[in-house]
Amino acid sequence: MVELHDLMKNRRSIREFIGDRSIEDKILKRVIDAPFLAPSAANIKGFNLLIVDEPDLKQKIRDLCEKGEYNWVFSQPTEIKESILSLPNYSFQKDFLTDAPILIIVSTDPENPNVPYAVESCWLAIAYMLLEIENSELGSLTYTPSLIQTEKRNELNKILNLSKEEIIQTIVPVGYFEEKPEAKTVEISDNVHLNQFRNPFFN
Amino acid sequence: MVELHDLMKNRRSIREFIGDRSIEDKILKRVIDAPFLAPSAANIKGFNLLIVDEPDLKQKIRDLCEKGEYNWVFSQPTEIKESILSLPNYSFQKDFLTDAPILIIVSTDPENPNVPYAVESCWLAIAYMLLEIENSELGSLTYTPSLIQTEKRNELNKILNLSKEEIIQTIVPVGYFEEKPEAKTVEISDNVHLNQFRNPFFN
Repeated sequence: MVELHDLMKNRRSIREFIGDRSIEDKILKRVIDAPFLAPSAANIKGFNLLIVDEPDLKQKIRDLCEKGEYNWVFSQPTEIKESILSLPNYSFQKDFLTDAPILIIVSTDPENPNVPYAVESCWLAIAYMLLEIENSELGSLTYTPSLIQTEKRNELNKILNLSKEEIIQTIVPVGYFEEKPEAKTVEISDNVHLNQFRNPFFN
Repeated sequence: MVELHDLMKNRRSIREFIGDRSIEDKILKRVIDAPFLAPSAANIKGFNLLIVDEPDLKQKIRDLCEKGEYNWVFSQPTEIKESILSLPNYSFQKDFLTDAPILIIVSTDPENPNVPYAVESCWLAIAYMLLEIENSELGSLTYTPSLIQTEKRNELNKILNLSKEEIIQTIVPVGYFEEKPEAKTVEISDNVHLNQFRNPFFN
């Protein structure tokens, strides 16, 4: 039995990367393998991984994401806008999109009739990838640009040569890091029930 | 570094459980912890786990799921119907829903404005749980009843005391097993691209 529980607890979102330390090919290959090992509906791998390492392209992605996020947040009702702006670590500046040596962009086409439960299966795959990144002593973040929720997402798809139908699920910057927050603590609260909803499993 | 890659490769869907071998409390507790360690949008745990161990309730769930699946499959266009019926291991009989000592039902409310990316975060959590189940040498399956795609889902929610807004994402039967298929092989095919979609990462 591997110390999986510790791996899960120790994985934390990383926003500051050591920009000039690149990822060894062998390690990157293992990270890329992981999502393809995840279970998926009808065993169909209906997602795409786009590995971005070109500095100019990362900058273009960052520019679009920052602008898109600013516009999106300020188009929201006051309550939602304020709750976003008060999130810990929240900033319109997405340095991690250019600092990380690699961005892994994960996309799928939720309307593809040949890929049942495309989004669900895609996120199972993303979880596998995040854990393999942690296991490789690399840092990562699951960043989903607000841009994706608007028609502006086509501009992002265009610079990546992605068809309109492919919806970017997340952009995962990956790289080495210097500082990491403390391990997570499990906070289950009242989300676990026994046989009937609202019959607490833990007494 | 733990042998996570092997764990991912060795995990396979299990449909036949040893019905009379129950799961130790300590192990079940660790399995239940895992999804709460997964990252989630705004760090909100917007899902519920319902642990079902009552035989009568498992039978009711099975009856509803089997009937719902039969009706759903035969309401589909011929092409989809035939592709489902030809899936490997496909059967209308869901023995695993009564054979497994425990069902873990995972639900979330995709329309809850306080839970951003509810479905996406929920499936990250499910992946964590599946890996902890594998790591505990237990078997599991991610079974999503077709019923969920119809209004009949309310009948299932009702017997679990779940509100209409909560959408069951999957039912995960968990238990010990005798036989397991061989480890997975990684088949990445043409899903990995470098900087531009359709520019293959692997040559």
